[in-house]
Amino acid sequence: MASIQTIARNCRKVMCIGRNYADHVKELNNQRPKQPFFFLKPPSSLLLPGAGPVLRPKGVNMHYEVELGLIMGKTVRDLHPEDTEGALAAIDGYLLAIDMTARNVQEEAKGKGLPWSIAKGFDTFLPISNLISKSKIPDPHNAHLWLSVNGETKQSDNTELMLFRIPRQLSDISRVMTLEAGDIVLTGTPKGVGPVKTGDLMKAGLSVDGKDIEEANIEVP
Amino acid sequence: MASIQTIARNCRKVMCIGRNYADHVKELNNQRPKQPFFFLKPPSSLLLPGAGPVLRPKGVNMHYEVELGLIMGKTVRDLHPEDTEGALAAIDGYLLAIDMTARNVQEEAKGKGLPWSIAKGFDTFLPISNLISKSKIPDPHNAHLWLSVNGETKQSDNTELMLFRIPRQLSDISRVMTLEAGDIVLTGTPKGVGPVKTGDLMKAGLSVDGKDIEEANIEVP
Ligand SMILES: [Mg+2]
Ligand SMILES: [Mg+2]
Ligand SMILES: [Mg+2]
Repeated sequence: MASIQTIARNCRKVMCIGRNYADHVKELNNQRPKQPFFFLKPPSSLLLPGAGPVLRPKGVNMHYEVELGLIMGKTVRDLHPEDTEGALAAIDGYLLAIDMTARNVQEEAKGKGLPWSIAKGFDTFLPISNLISKSKIPDPHNAHLWLSVNGETKQSDNTELMLFRIPRQLSDISRVMTLEAGDIVLTGTPKGVGPVKTGDLMKAGLSVDGKDIEEANIEVP
Repeated sequence: MASIQTIARNCRKVMCIGRNYADHVKELNNQRPKQPFFFLKPPSSLLLPGAGPVLRPKGVNMHYEVELGLIMGKTVRDLHPEDTEGALAAIDGYLLAIDMTARNVQEEAKGKGLPWSIAKGFDTFLPISNLISKSKIPDPHNAHLWLSVNGETKQSDNTELMLFRIPRQLSDISRVMTLEAGDIVLTGTPKGVGPVKTGDLMKAGLSVDGKDIEEANIEVP
């Protein structure tokens, strides 16, 4: 598989699911969705390992959201929601990502019925880990994600808590738009999101059955 | 300059401005924006000349929006809103595009404060013309756009009516996210948007000082 640098350079689409963990839906006072919904982040928001810091735009309340990311390995169209085998076969590898969000910009957009693209799309708003080979995560619905700010754990939950699992996500996306090899899909964030300011240090990681996956480590100011 | 096929294949970002013509803002009962706002379409929505038809997803009220598109030729960051020379120098060429929109999906998203990515992002929802070389449009704020459905003219207006001109658009976008060579920017649609159904024939074109630009012609079922 290509390096994370090559993947970032060639990536044409980053598709993210919103509200995919029940306790996160509650903490933002949102309604639990009856079906998954998605938004795009621009590839220009990708921040490679070691390429930090995340830049806080003036006047922006910047929130972290740690998420498991899928790197697509093939073209996917109209996947059946119960085709677990097909979904997993279409994934080429994983990464950990922080879906940085300009929360106040997003809240304003939500209130006005405007798109989320700006709130989600600033440069550096998508720090990613190194590539995680598929063999390291035998079951993407059994991986433990965590994120800390200045040493204090803020998010720590298992992907088994996803409201909509990965086959359903890839099905719903691919019925709207073709997923292409090299596209990245972010699978949603568990509870515990919150603000970071310039100078804060975010760390994030992923473990499987209690074992840390080193490639998943993110450390970004 | 590369062919339109190469441009489409390499494009990593399609950024679109909303509500950029006063009479179009009125026809959709929207508020006139105090500043430009933007949304992303995925590159997978691009439909090359002759590659039609546009596919209408089941249950979708599909609207056309004809727009002048810019093809970026260089990296742009933090452009000054009055840097007209810098803005024009960053443009490598033009195209005509139809920003197809699932209007009912968009209206539902607006009402719920959800992202627009699905409403704007279906496969085939971005028919484009051939490449228009820069020399053919000496002033992008003086080009006449038109679109017809089954021979009946629906949209016909000059780009001089843009509420926010191109330097301001590129400035506002590039203060949020870096524009990269090969990115496409859609500059908004004039009044006259409306529905098309399967089997309707859309034609669109562009003229400068009364002279048709042949490369701009779109004909898509
Ligand atoms: Mg959006
Ligand atoms: Mg998120
Ligand atoms: Mg439009």
